[in-house]
Amino acid sequence: MNARDALPSKILLDESEMPTQWYNIVADLPEPPPPALHPGTHQPAGPDDFAPLFPMALIEQEVTTERYVDIPGGVLDVYRLWRPSPLFRARRLEQLLDTPARIYYKYEGVSPAGSHKPNTSVPQAYYNHVEGITKLTTETGAGQWGSALAFATAQYGMECEVWQVAASYRSKPHRRTMMQIWGASVHPSPSEVTEYGRSLLAEDPDHPGSLGIAISEAVSMAVADPSTRYALGSVLNHVLLHQTIIGEEALLQLAKVGETPDLLVGCTGGGSNFGGLAFPFLREKLTGGMSPEIRCVEPAACPTLTQGEYRYDFGDTAGMTPLMKMHTLGHDFIPEPIHAGGLRYHGMSPLVSHLYEQGLVSAASIPQTECFSAALQFAQAEGIVPAPEPTHALAAAIREARACKESGEEKVILTALCGHGHLDLASYEQFLSGEMVDLELPQSRIDEAMTSVPVIA
Amino acid sequence: MNARDALPSKILLDESEMPTQWYNIVADLPEPPPPALHPGTHQPAGPDDFAPLFPMALIEQEVTTERYVDIPGGVLDVYRLWRPSPLFRARRLEQLLDTPARIYYKYEGVSPAGSHKPNTSVPQAYYNHVEGITKLTTETGAGQWGSALAFATAQYGMECEVWQVAASYRSKPHRRTMMQIWGASVHPSPSEVTEYGRSLLAEDPDHPGSLGIAISEAVSMAVADPSTRYALGSVLNHVLLHQTIIGEEALLQLAKVGETPDLLVGCTGGGSNFGGLAFPFLREKLTGGMSPEIRCVEPAACPTLTQGEYRYDFGDTAGMTPLMKMHTLGHDFIPEPIHAGGLRYHGMSPLVSHLYEQGLVSAASIPQTECFSAALQFAQAEGIVPAPEPTHALAAAIREARACKESGEEKVILTALCGHGHLDLASYEQFLSGEMVDLELPQSRIDEAMTSVPVIA
Repeated sequence: MNARDALPSKILLDESEMPTQWYNIVADLPEPPPPALHPGTHQPAGPDDFAPLFPMALIEQEVTTERYVDIPGGVLDVYRLWRPSPLFRARRLEQLLDTPARIYYKYEGVSPAGSHKPNTSVPQAYYNHVEGITKLTTETGAGQWGSALAFATAQYGMECEVWQVAASYRSKPHRRTMMQIWGASVHPSPSEVTEYGRSLLAEDPDHPGSLGIAISEAVSMAVADPSTRYALGSVLNHVLLHQTIIGEEALLQLAKVGETPDLLVGCTGGGSNFGGLAFPFLREKLTGGMSPEIRCVEPAACPTLTQGEYRYDFGDTAGMTPLMKMHTLGHDFIPEPIHAGGLRYHGMSPLVSHLYEQGLVSAASIPQTECFSAALQFAQAEGIVPAPEPTHALAAAIREARACKESGEEKVILTALCGHGHLDLASYEQFLSGEMVDLELPQSRIDEAMTSVPVIA
Repeated sequence: MNARDALPSKILLDESEMPTQWYNIVADLPEPPPPALHPGTHQPAGPDDFAPLFPMALIEQEVTTERYVDIPGGVLDVYRLWRPSPLFRARRLEQLLDTPARIYYKYEGVSPAGSHKPNTSVPQAYYNHVEGITKLTTETGAGQWGSALAFATAQYGMECEVWQVAASYRSKPHRRTMMQIWGASVHPSPSEVTEYGRSLLAEDPDHPGSLGIAISEAVSMAVADPSTRYALGSVLNHVLLHQTIIGEEALLQLAKVGETPDLLVGCTGGGSNFGGLAFPFLREKLTGGMSPEIRCVEPAACPTLTQGEYRYDFGDTAGMTPLMKMHTLGHDFIPEPIHAGGLRYHGMSPLVSHLYEQGLVSAASIPQTECFSAALQFAQAEGIVPAPEPTHALAAAIREARACKESGEEKVILTALCGHGHLDLASYEQFLSGEMVDLELPQSRIDEAMTSVPVIA
C-alpha cells in the first residue's frame, strides 16, 4: 500500500450535515433573467397563468428573488433515504490517465431512481400534496424522470400518470416496470387518452412520439382536472432550485479536504443537473470566494447552447406552455436518437441560457462515441457504470486531465455523475460491438426547425 | 415534521472506520466442520489438491483456524470505492407495516457490480495477482458473480474469462454487457471451448446449461493453464471469510445507535451473503455478547437446508470438484427457473450447513410470489428496488414485523439487502402482470437427484 492508497476515496457527509436550504441564484445575478411570456398575449406570464399546472408554492419558487429557500421537513425526511450523496475523488482514474489533475465527482446514482431527478420530484410531490392535489401527470423519454416522479408520489400516497415517448415505451420496458413498481400508470405517447394524442395517431398509428408531444399530453390532462397538476423534471427555475442541494453538499465536502475547484463540468440537457451542481459554486465565484471556470457540456447531436439561438420559444411541441427565453433549436427540432436520451431536449433552461449569455458559464459539445470511450475508462478505473448523459461531462473532464498531463498543471476538476447506467446497458452493447456512430447535424436542419419559433415583438 | 422524521435513516461509517480484518468463525466453533475430501480417494483433500484451482493464500484461508485475517492494503484500496456500505433503519417500511419492530438493513447494492459479490471477487483477484496469476476463469448464472469478478480483475489488470449458463446468456444480455464493459470475455455454457461443453452440445445444440456445468467448464480451463486459476463466488470457507466485512461493519453501525438485534435474517443460496452478515453476530452470540436468533431464508423451489440431506457431495455437475459435506439436493438437481437465480444452487456452504446441524442457526423457505409482494412493499416505502434474492430475507423480516404488531414486541430485526434489482426488472414485470406462479416441488424430484450423490464409507 502506497501513500496514495491510504488517502480517502469518498468524502461523506452525515445526515446531520445535510443542507436545509436550496440556493436561488437569481438573487445574486448582475441582471435578472427575462420573464416567461403568456403564449397568446406575449405579455409576462403571471401566477394565474401557471396555476392550472403547478401548486402555488412552486409558482412562488419560480419567481422568487430570495437567496435561500428552506427545505421542508417532509422533504428532508425523504431526501434522507439517499442523501447526502457521496463525493468521490477519482484516484484510480487519475492513475489510469497519469495526470497531475485531481478529479472529483459528485455521485447522484445512489438515489432510488438512480439519478439526480428525485431531488426535485420529491419536493414537487410534497408541495402538491400539501396543497391537496392527489395526482400528478408528467412526460418521460427513456424513463428517468417518470421513475423519479413515480418514486416521489409513492412517498406521499399520491397517484402518478406518465406519458412515455412511444419509441422508448416499446423498446425500453424496464424503466416502465420501475414506474409501475412504485405504483404509477404509464401510457405510450401519443396516446388514445388525449385529443392531441388521438389526432397524431390518426395520422400515424405507429407514431414514435417525442418529448415535446408527451409534454403536451401530460399538460392537457393536468389542466382538465382541478385535483391534478403537472410536474416538469428540468428547465424551470424551481426545478434547478431544488437541484442546488447537489452543489451545496459538494461545497461542504470539498471544504472537508481543503480543495477548491479550478474547473467544473456538467452535462446539459434541460440544465437541471448542471445548475444543481454549478449554481452554489457560481455564488462563490460571484461573491469572490473562489474562481472556477464553469462549463456546460452538451451532445454534438443536440447543441442547444453552442448552435441554438437565444429566443423566446415554447417548451413543448404543440405550443401550449408559456414562452421562455432560452437557447433553442426550435420546438419542432427532433434530434437523432443518441443514447443520452436525457440530453435530447430542443431547448435549454432559461436560467442556464441567461448565464451563458452573460458570459458566466462556457459551453462545449462532444460526440457520443468519445463519451462512451470515456465511460469505459471511467468504469474500468472507478467501477461505476455511468448513465450515457454524464459521460459527456466525464469526456470533458478526461480531455482536461489529459491537457494537464501535457502542461503539468495540478488542476482540481469537479464533475457531476448524475446517474448510473444499469438501465442503459443496451447502449454500451452497441458501443462495444462497434455499431455506434456519430451522425453529422447539418445546419440546415437547425435552420428549418427555427422557422417554428414565434417572432416576439 | 414529527420526532420520527428527525431521527437518522442511514448509519454511515467513515472510510477510516472500515474494518481491516475478516473474521473466521471456525476459530470459535464448538466443533470443527468436516474436511473436504478428494473426489477419487475420498481422503481429506490437502493443499496440493486445491493448488491447480486456487492460489496458495486462498488455500491457506480455506483451512485456517486463526480467528482474524488481515485485509491487505491493496484490497482495502479497492473496497474504498464503495465501502463502508450504509446500514439503513427502514423507518418508512415500519410505518407502512404499523409495527413496533425496528427493522435495519445493510445495503450491499452500492458496490459497482450492485451486489455483495465484490467483497470476495476483489481479494480473490488480488491474491492471484500477487502470486503471478494473470487470468481467472469462473462460471455465472444471471451474471452477478461474473460481473463482480470482471470488475475485480479489471482493478488489477488481469484477464477474466466467464462461462455463463446458456439460457441466461441468451435471455439476459445486460449483465454480459456489464462484464464486457469491465473487459471480460464471456462464453455461453455449454461452450465449444471445452471438451465437456462440446460433448453436451453434441447431444443437444440448444442445451440451456446449468451452473454445475458452467463450473465444470471454468474449472477445466483453469487446471489446463499454469498462469490461470479459477474463482468461486460462494460456498467455500474463504469466500464466506471475505464477506464477513458486511457483518463487522453492521456491528459497528448498530453500536453507534445503541442497538443489538433480536433476529437476523439472510437469504441463502450458496451461503456467502448470509455468512457475511451472520458470522460476526454469531461470534458475539457464542462469546456471550448478544443473543440474536439467526435465520437462513431459502426459496421454496430450492430448499437445500430445509429439505436437503447433510451428505458429502460434489460442488459441480460433472463431479470434478472435491467432495464437501453440505446440505444438498443432489448435484444433478436443477431447480425450477425461479427469478432468484442466485439461490438456485443444489448445495449449501459446508460452513453454514455445519452451523445448521449444530443448531446455531435456523432455516425457513418462502415461495417467490410472497417474496415479490414483500419487495413491492419495500420499494414503495424505502425506494430501493431489491434484487430477487434478498426479497426472501425481506419477506421473512416482514412476516416477523407483522407478528410483532400482533404481539406488541419491539424486536430489532436485522437483514442484508445484498443487491439491487435494476437488472431484474423483467422479473418484476412478470410479477406485476400476474404471470408469476409458485410451482410445487415434489419430494420425488429431490429423491431422484439424491441418487447421484456418492456414498462415502
